[in-house]
Amino acid sequence: MSTGSPVGSHRVVSPAGALPQAADRLDVTPDIAETEVRVRVERLNLDAASYRQLHTAHHGDGDAIRAAVLDIVERRGKMHNPRTGSGGMLIGTVEAVGERSPLGLRPGQKIATLVSLTLTPLHLDDGLARWDGLSEQVPASGHAVLFARSLAAALPEHLPEPLALAVLDVCGAPALVRRVVARRAHARATVAVLGAAGKSGSLSLAAARDARAAAVLGVVRDEAEAVRLRPTGLADRVVVADATDPLALAEAVTEALDGRGADVTVVCVDVPGCEHGAVLATAAGGTVVFFSMATSFSAAALGAEGLAADVEMLIGNGYVPGHADYALGLLTADPALRGLFEDRIESAEPAAAARKGR
Amino acid sequence: MSTGSPVGSHRVVSPAGALPQAADRLDVTPDIAETEVRVRVERLNLDAASYRQLHTAHHGDGDAIRAAVLDIVERRGKMHNPRTGSGGMLIGTVEAVGERSPLGLRPGQKIATLVSLTLTPLHLDDGLARWDGLSEQVPASGHAVLFARSLAAALPEHLPEPLALAVLDVCGAPALVRRVVARRAHARATVAVLGAAGKSGSLSLAAARDARAAAVLGVVRDEAEAVRLRPTGLADRVVVADATDPLALAEAVTEALDGRGADVTVVCVDVPGCEHGAVLATAAGGTVVFFSMATSFSAAALGAEGLAADVEMLIGNGYVPGHADYALGLLTADPALRGLFEDRIESAEPAAAARKGR
Repeated sequence: MSTGSPVGSHRVVSPAGALPQAADRLDVTPDIAETEVRVRVERLNLDAASYRQLHTAHHGDGDAIRAAVLDIVERRGKMHNPRTGSGGMLIGTVEAVGERSPLGLRPGQKIATLVSLTLTPLHLDDGLARWDGLSEQVPASGHAVLFARSLAAALPEHLPEPLALAVLDVCGAPALVRRVVARRAHARATVAVLGAAGKSGSLSLAAARDARAAAVLGVVRDEAEAVRLRPTGLADRVVVADATDPLALAEAVTEALDGRGADVTVVCVDVPGCEHGAVLATAAGGTVVFFSMATSFSAAALGAEGLAADVEMLIGNGYVPGHADYALGLLTADPALRGLFEDRIESAEPAAAARKGR
Repeated sequence: MSTGSPVGSHRVVSPAGALPQAADRLDVTPDIAETEVRVRVERLNLDAASYRQLHTAHHGDGDAIRAAVLDIVERRGKMHNPRTGSGGMLIGTVEAVGERSPLGLRPGQKIATLVSLTLTPLHLDDGLARWDGLSEQVPASGHAVLFARSLAAALPEHLPEPLALAVLDVCGAPALVRRVVARRAHARATVAVLGAAGKSGSLSLAAARDARAAAVLGVVRDEAEAVRLRPTGLADRVVVADATDPLALAEAVTEALDGRGADVTVVCVDVPGCEHGAVLATAAGGTVVFFSMATSFSAAALGAEGLAADVEMLIGNGYVPGHADYALGLLTADPALRGLFEDRIESAEPAAAARKGR
C-alpha cells in the first residue's frame, strides 16, 4: 500500500505532472493508498451546466445522454465533461479507509463528496441501468476514491438525501456570498442575484440577507420562476430579465435599485453569455461573483475592460471553510427556502417523466 | 448622424442584443455616430495569447498567420481571435470626432486604444502588406471606431511609440496588483509573480513593491529569463519553475518564501494550465489574480475546490481608473524596468527576422 499524494497526483494516468482535475485520465483501481478512502457510489449529481450541455447535444434523448456519460467515465476514469469542464458530486457509503487518511471517515458512513467529480476517480459497474438519462440526479453503482485533501460531508440525518445532496452541491456559493457582502459591512451592500430561483441562487439570496445586505434583489428569467420565488420572501424584490441580454438586464437591475447598479452581483445562471450583463448591472467599485460554470474568463475580463467598468470579478471558489454546515443551516432555518428546494427536486421528476413519454 | 449607444451596441450586426465584444460581427462603416470617434490605424498590437495560438496553429508560417488575421478581421469586423477570445490594441491618429463624444480627443492626435480589439470595429485596407506575420506588433492601415465608453490614451511624447504601446497594452495589471496588495497593508503581503520577466509580469513586480509588499518573488520559466530579470532588482528573489507543473511550482514558491505560500499570486504566463499551480502556490486566505487570457474559468474554480484551497481568485480586469498613467509612471521612474521592456521589444525584431530567414 503506497502513501499516495495528498492531492491525488499518483492517480493521474496522463498527462504526466498534472493534478487530477487537469488530467485526461485517472487510474480507478479499487486498491487504495494509505491516505485514500474508497466509496461505494450510490448516486451522482451532475453539474447543471454539464447536464444541460449533454441534454442539448443529444436533443433530450435519454438513452443517448446515458451513453455519453458512460463513455466519458469509461474513457477518463472520472465524470468530467470535456465540453463544459465541469462534473458534479456523488453520494455513497464509505467502504474502506486508508490508515493515514485525515478525512475522519468510518466505513459504513453515508457521505457526499464536496470536491468535484472532475477530479474524483470513478468507476461504474452497472451501466447506469437505473437512470433514464433525463435528470441531473443519477442512480449509479460503482466505486470512487477520495484523497487526503478531498472533502466529504457526512449526510445529515434530519434531511432527505436528495435534498441534502442538492444543497451540498452548491454550498460554496452562500458561504462566499456571505463573505463578500460582510466585507462591505461599513456601507451595507445592495445585492443582485441572477438565477435567483435556482439552487445556488436561492441560497445566495439567503446568505446575502444573513450578511445584512441593504437590499436583496432576485433576478429570474421568466414569470414562472418569479411566481416560485416571490412567496418565499427570500428577496426584497423579484424582477424578470434575460441575463444574456446585457442592456435589458442592466436596466432591470438599476431600475429596481433606485437608479444604481448592485454593489454585489452574483451570477448563478447556468447558460453562457451572462458576463457582460453582470458587469453592466454592477455599480462602480462593486463586485461580481461568477458561480456559473458557463462563465467565460476572457468574456468577463475583456468585457469589463471594454465597458471601462471598475468592478472586481471573482471566480466562484467552491470551497470556503465551513461551507457545508453553513448552507445546511440556512436551509434548515428557513422553511420557505427548504420548500423551494423540495419543489425543485420533486418537479424535476415528473418533468423528466413527461419528456420521456414523448 | 445618429447618436449611437455609449457601449457600441448599434454597431453589432449579429447576434441581436449582444454587446460588441460578444458579437460575431461588427459594422465597420466609416460614418460615425455623434458619440463616436474614427481613428486612422497605424499599428495593431496583438494579444500575446492570440498571437501564440495563431503562430502555433500555422507552424510559424508568417504568410499563413497574416492571412489568418486578415480573414478574422474581414469576417468579424474586429480582430477577435475566436480560439482565444482575445484581441489586443491599436495605435493610430484621430481622424474624426463626433460632436457628442466624451473622450476629449482632437483630430490629428496620436492615440492608443485601451479597450480590447475584440470590441473595436476595425477595417483594414492594405492587406497587412507591411507585416511579415512574425511579430505581435503589426504595421497596418485602415480605420477603427471608438464609442463613448471606450478608452484611449494620448501617446506620451517622451517615450518611443512601440515602448508606450507595449506598456499600455498591459497597464491594467500593475494598477490591479497595487490595489490588491495595498488592501493587505495591515499585514504586508508576500507577492509571487508568475511570468515575471514579461511585460505584465515585470510591471506587476514594480507595482507590488510600490504597494509596499513584504517580499516580491519573480517566477520565470527558464534560466535565460532569470538572467534578464535578476539584474533589474525588480524582484527580491528570482526562481525558475514551470508554472504548468503545479507541484513543482508550489514547491519553488513555498521554498523561496520561507515555507509559506504567497499572500498574492499574480498569473502573467500566457500559456494554458497554470491555474492549479497558482492556487497551490498561494497561502490560505490569499488571493490569486489571473491576468493571462489563457486562464480557464472552470479549471480555476474546480481546481481550488478540489484542492480545498481557501483562496480568493480574481479575473484580471483590464480597467482600473488611472491605469495608463500609473503604468507609464512606473516605467519612467525605473530605468531597469524600462530597459527590460526595451530589450524585449528590440529582441523581438531580430528573432522574427531570424525566423523569417529560415
